[in-house]
Amino acid sequence: MIEFTFTLKKDAADPLYVQLYRYIKHAVQNRKIAADTRLPSVRKLSQHLKVGKNTVETAYHQLLAEGYIESRPRSGYYTCCLDDSLALRAGMRPEVHPPALRKSTLPCHYDFRYGQIDPEQFPAKTWRRLVIKSISPEDASLYDYGDRQGEYGLRMEIAKYIYPARGAACSPEQIIVTAGTQQALDLICKLTRSSNKRAAVEDPGYAGGRLILESNGLELRPIPLTASGINLEKLAESQAQMVLVSPSRQFPYGISMPISKRLALLNWAEKTGALIIENDYEGEFGYNSRPIPALQGLDQNGNVVYLYTFSNSFLPSIRISFIILPEPLLKRYHDHFAILEQSVSRMQQKTLQFFMAEGYWERHIRKMKKLYKRKCQLLIDSLSLCLGDRAEVVGSSAGMHLLLRVKNGMGEAELIEKAWEAGVKIYPVSNLWMYPSDAEESLILLGFGGMKEDQMAQGVRLLKKAWSV
Amino acid sequence: MIEFTFTLKKDAADPLYVQLYRYIKHAVQNRKIAADTRLPSVRKLSQHLKVGKNTVETAYHQLLAEGYIESRPRSGYYTCCLDDSLALRAGMRPEVHPPALRKSTLPCHYDFRYGQIDPEQFPAKTWRRLVIKSISPEDASLYDYGDRQGEYGLRMEIAKYIYPARGAACSPEQIIVTAGTQQALDLICKLTRSSNKRAAVEDPGYAGGRLILESNGLELRPIPLTASGINLEKLAESQAQMVLVSPSRQFPYGISMPISKRLALLNWAEKTGALIIENDYEGEFGYNSRPIPALQGLDQNGNVVYLYTFSNSFLPSIRISFIILPEPLLKRYHDHFAILEQSVSRMQQKTLQFFMAEGYWERHIRKMKKLYKRKCQLLIDSLSLCLGDRAEVVGSSAGMHLLLRVKNGMGEAELIEKAWEAGVKIYPVSNLWMYPSDAEESLILLGFGGMKEDQMAQGVRLLKKAWSV
Repeated sequence: MIEFTFTLKKDAADPLYVQLYRYIKHAVQNRKIAADTRLPSVRKLSQHLKVGKNTVETAYHQLLAEGYIESRPRSGYYTCCLDDSLALRAGMRPEVHPPALRKSTLPCHYDFRYGQIDPEQFPAKTWRRLVIKSISPEDASLYDYGDRQGEYGLRMEIAKYIYPARGAACSPEQIIVTAGTQQALDLICKLTRSSNKRAAVEDPGYAGGRLILESNGLELRPIPLTASGINLEKLAESQAQMVLVSPSRQFPYGISMPISKRLALLNWAEKTGALIIENDYEGEFGYNSRPIPALQGLDQNGNVVYLYTFSNSFLPSIRISFIILPEPLLKRYHDHFAILEQSVSRMQQKTLQFFMAEGYWERHIRKMKKLYKRKCQLLIDSLSLCLGDRAEVVGSSAGMHLLLRVKNGMGEAELIEKAWEAGVKIYPVSNLWMYPSDAEESLILLGFGGMKEDQMAQGVRLLKKAWSV
Repeated sequence: MIEFTFTLKKDAADPLYVQLYRYIKHAVQNRKIAADTRLPSVRKLSQHLKVGKNTVETAYHQLLAEGYIESRPRSGYYTCCLDDSLALRAGMRPEVHPPALRKSTLPCHYDFRYGQIDPEQFPAKTWRRLVIKSISPEDASLYDYGDRQGEYGLRMEIAKYIYPARGAACSPEQIIVTAGTQQALDLICKLTRSSNKRAAVEDPGYAGGRLILESNGLELRPIPLTASGINLEKLAESQAQMVLVSPSRQFPYGISMPISKRLALLNWAEKTGALIIENDYEGEFGYNSRPIPALQGLDQNGNVVYLYTFSNSFLPSIRISFIILPEPLLKRYHDHFAILEQSVSRMQQKTLQFFMAEGYWERHIRKMKKLYKRKCQLLIDSLSLCLGDRAEVVGSSAGMHLLLRVKNGMGEAELIEKAWEAGVKIYPVSNLWMYPSDAEESLILLGFGGMKEDQMAQGVRLLKKAWSV
């Protein structure tokens, strides 16, 4: 019988049976266990690994179903001979493409990943209580398909919040709840399909947004930035019928668009009949001033679709965003798209509704703004202390990330590689340009939302060493 | 001061403040309360309506934000004068389009709506326990963005279930979790955008699916049905590069495609390089035979994308579906679409994963199959008893609905109207045809998933009267 020199990790992201399944699958695939080898019995292996029999059974069951092992009566489980025909028969080639995110989610003490929140500050207990409230067995109506635009009560809370907080005026009837920002953009593309062929995007900008626009058949027009945001002359030249912008906080440069440019942008839209998609991303987290109200509130002519997400700053794994449609698009939605199903589960919508209605949402946002502001300042101080004038911080007046322009002669790839070798994960920005060759050299991204304060300081010290600055 | 002759309903779907807000808004809009009228104070109105002050405050707050009322210092709240310019300024025209679903979700004792589950059978307590488990404050990793294809553990459970249950062979790596069937179809369209221009659909068929294909720019080719499902000759003539089919159970006719046609369909796909999207809808709920395994399991050449939803038969409000991609599409996904975010919240995915891993899923499906089979038979018996040979049941060997061909000379619209007048809601099918004028006359749809058994019998008796048959 073969030896298993394998330790299952109780605290890993994957359950034990998944770990065991993967281990054996790899071993069979890579011929580390030869074909026709008898595997230990469920009982023996569970004793050896000190796990429940169920864990081993489940892993074996899946390996059986996929054809990696076979069961021989009165003898036990044996590894299969993996030839090409078998893989073909099962219609699969497992593990050809390991999930892209796996690697980067390995635990790391100094991970400046953007898009992480501070887990200790998340109001887990309150959230849990409200989740339970949302699955009340007495209210079986929630089992059913809900309102396709989203729960009315949630839309009401959103309308109530978004006007004072972001200056976006709307009635609940104009709101459509979506499962994340990308789905929101996708819906906007569908609503405007007949009239729009060319879409302008900030360059650099939100890469996931570009993909959605492109995959809806739109020709993209990358528009360069000026110090005050998107270049309006280039935008006018582009003849785009639609533009995706983040006036509150441009990604990744963090530019907040001044009011004069906002009005000029609205003017352009009015004159050309173009649609502005306002991605109001991290609008609450302006640190040096009161947040600038949304463009949508200035719009007199129904040229702006407003887009807001709860994922980014609140809970990345929740996947709730919404859009506010101006009247012409709302009409088109009702005329042609009213049979689209709502994509967010009703219980999740209700939970968020309760969270907002009971005042937790505003309290949480206020608290996080303070916290992230402090983290941001700490990171800037650390960078200044350690790197001095060999590095320049860009776009640090808001949000949960900043950019760092490093002046030691290294390019983006080398900066990242050296940092990773020193145990610090930092991230590229060149992929945010439509053509990465246009990207600014020696610029990297540091997210700090999920970092602990002492981690940041230590991470920066390691960066100093890694980059020999 | 004005009188409020208004009763708030504690057991309504909308919270009290929503009801109050809507009441006042309507009153102001329709001039039932004149402009410049002073509203009761929060305290007085809350006493009068016997609700909390918070309820009134919240409603007033929203009315203020939307500009229906205004606050005058040391005097109170007054209704605004609603002229067109105000509505324009706020960028809104509230209530122009009341949400389409509202009406049909009013309580009704005899509602044969399709897409409802039996609420009493839903394992709410177990589900709640597992939801709580999925929001463990100890496992903060769940707050973060997760695997973009979907949680690996959930995909593992799916792969383990779907092979024995539906004959669809796959590894977890081939699975992509989506927020419902429409999002799944949308992703497939995006993946095949470059090569596909014409998509064939069953006619009649799933209307929501047609909308997704169309809104992705595909030309639709409606293919008529034969007694064994989609007409293969017409399909071949259509020169479609993609076809959306439901071999297990055609919607709405309930046809189960025989193996010979399945093989012929695969053969067509192989010869022409076309893609088959197998919408394996209610595949578990075949009542007169063992479920027929999925087409995907027969595919040798990577021509089938398999699509499964947990919404329909399990919990409509949960919004979780998945697709199994064949190798060529999986490669395209990783090459070009790996930056698309996952749309289903991680907690929901984890909850479903636990539900499957702990054996509840299979148990629930087994139980519901029995229950729906009994309901189906009871409904058929009632129809036969009451309507005799003046009505014919179609497609009743599976699923949660059946069709009724009524032979009393009335058309679809009249049948539905008469039934509604008698207090029984039944539903049209003509909208399932691409061109409703092609629809079969005098055919209506009865869903029975959410009906109680005695309701069904009584509902059918009322139908007999309403139709005078």
